[in-house]
Amino acid sequence: MDEKTVVILGATGSIGTQTLDVINKLNSYKVVGIVFGKNKLLGEKIIKQYSIKYYFSKRLSNVSSITELLEKTRPDIVISAIPGFYGVVTSFEAAKHTKRIALANKEALVCAGPFFKKECEKNNVELIPVDSEHSAIFQIFGKNVEKILITASGGAVRNYKNIENLTPSDILNHPVWNMGQKITVDSSTMVNKAFEVIEAYELFEVDNIEVLIHPTGTVHGAVFYKDGVVKIHFGFPDMKIPISYALTYPNRCYTYSKWPKFSSKNFIFEKVDEKKYPAFFYGKKLINNLAKRIAFNAADEIAVEKFLQGKIKFHEISKIIINTCEKIDGNVRDLNDIFELDKLARKIANNF
Amino acid sequence: MDEKTVVILGATGSIGTQTLDVINKLNSYKVVGIVFGKNKLLGEKIIKQYSIKYYFSKRLSNVSSITELLEKTRPDIVISAIPGFYGVVTSFEAAKHTKRIALANKEALVCAGPFFKKECEKNNVELIPVDSEHSAIFQIFGKNVEKILITASGGAVRNYKNIENLTPSDILNHPVWNMGQKITVDSSTMVNKAFEVIEAYELFEVDNIEVLIHPTGTVHGAVFYKDGVVKIHFGFPDMKIPISYALTYPNRCYTYSKWPKFSSKNFIFEKVDEKKYPAFFYGKKLINNLAKRIAFNAADEIAVEKFLQGKIKFHEISKIIINTCEKIDGNVRDLNDIFELDKLARKIANNF
Repeated sequence: MDEKTVVILGATGSIGTQTLDVINKLNSYKVVGIVFGKNKLLGEKIIKQYSIKYYFSKRLSNVSSITELLEKTRPDIVISAIPGFYGVVTSFEAAKHTKRIALANKEALVCAGPFFKKECEKNNVELIPVDSEHSAIFQIFGKNVEKILITASGGAVRNYKNIENLTPSDILNHPVWNMGQKITVDSSTMVNKAFEVIEAYELFEVDNIEVLIHPTGTVHGAVFYKDGVVKIHFGFPDMKIPISYALTYPNRCYTYSKWPKFSSKNFIFEKVDEKKYPAFFYGKKLINNLAKRIAFNAADEIAVEKFLQGKIKFHEISKIIINTCEKIDGNVRDLNDIFELDKLARKIANNF
Repeated sequence: MDEKTVVILGATGSIGTQTLDVINKLNSYKVVGIVFGKNKLLGEKIIKQYSIKYYFSKRLSNVSSITELLEKTRPDIVISAIPGFYGVVTSFEAAKHTKRIALANKEALVCAGPFFKKECEKNNVELIPVDSEHSAIFQIFGKNVEKILITASGGAVRNYKNIENLTPSDILNHPVWNMGQKITVDSSTMVNKAFEVIEAYELFEVDNIEVLIHPTGTVHGAVFYKDGVVKIHFGFPDMKIPISYALTYPNRCYTYSKWPKFSSKNFIFEKVDEKKYPAFFYGKKLINNLAKRIAFNAADEIAVEKFLQGKIKFHEISKIIINTCEKIDGNVRDLNDIFELDKLARKIANNF
């Protein structure tokens, strides 16, 4: 097989480092460029260890911009894993310079789905999801689908009765996935799962999307076909599996060869409790309203930051999000509108 | 869509009548010929109700042979559902006159797998499994498979501690699938499941095949990929689903739109008890020995017949099968060898 070149946007984060681990175990994938954020030490280490030719960050670069890095490398695959709203911009940039985007950034689909998909289509870019649930659905999706199921761990909140006064340290102890702080809080509020419903809607163009709480995280998703067939995607919750699939699709070149047991404890499902996860129920109804989706994302970023700083209580995260979304509406005509709505929503959320 | 023509071999049996039900609900499939056995009354009814142009049976025909029926109809699809060893002959005949065989007969693969596959390949015939487990695997199979799982109800025997003296009426009360007598007994001995392991080996060319007891029959099969992914096929145990898939593949034109609940009781799996199912454990080790596979099938037909006639006890079915297989071995060079070995095995089994 020819060597495939890879650029990682967000190389020092959880997805970035796991991508490097996966590529280390695969033949014929070569990282030719990385973009990273504040973690200069780790960035330097990666550059040395993997002999990265081009790199860009605020504090360590040998190119002047991400655009220049992408122009110079023209990689076969971009891992788009810069989190947050900035990841929208970098995902669009990636779509201009590669053949495949392995998408880990949620905001590109949540805040700019229709525009981002158009950009990929225009440039003939394959869009492969990296999120475990979306990778799962992608792997079992076909014709004549009536419904999609994605599962949720329920986050740290699942086992608490009274959630009002949970502290950041209560929350950051996530039961299944080992992830960054922001996404761990989003997992506790299940705002993350609302994002995933929206992403699934954009990726698969199915609006019947069910979410069930599933404590072991071994079932990642299921696809319900109109003839009565359900395909279920099952496996250990390890991000290296979907990352490797996004890299090697349509092949499976990564060797893992461990599978969870077929025992009923790996197949426990519960309904989502409306009282515990108000922002989730609110958010998943927004699939058809792009303006409110942008507000939902922006307000969540602000609210989670405030919560992690100890400025607001846990249950106020949902309040800030819902309050902000209620005040935002309107048509979204282009990327500029998206940026404007994002700014406005952040302002409203900040003034809560 | 153009109308597809269908011939049903075994039209009055369980698969045959369910195929007619499915076709009744689909557009653009037309049954142009049927072959059936002893049930003249039902045969006549079907011929009238579906305006069948050509029909063949021992007691009612308007053609001189199955070959003539297939030559006159040259159907797009043949449902090959004549049970038993005679179904080998008719499946080979079908392979000469159609573009797709929806295979419900097990013996074509169990007793003649390599030859039958070659015949299909030579004639450019698509071979689509109808058996629920094989249809399931077929639907979730891909590259880089390490293992296949097929499930078993465990038959009527599962809930009995002492199986030696079970009577035909104890056995014919099958917990999940509603099937013919022979296959219901085969389900109780799990000889049927040994056949299915052999069939799966022939169809998918994977020799790592696990079988688990699964009482609800809602999980039909699973495919384990080398990257840690497992795809599971889930749905109600209703043969109309795999029948419709074999007809309409790669589309799913049949509307069912009911799916079992995602509750842990639909995901209970148990190991198979070696003491209860000796013939199963014996049979599934024969995948690489075609001569013994032929003997296994022949001896089982004889033994089940004797059991249903009250001539032998339940646990003697396994004894006859194993005893017969132990006495048969050798190379199988052609179809003639298959017929000879089948005859010989029947003789040995009858003399037990």
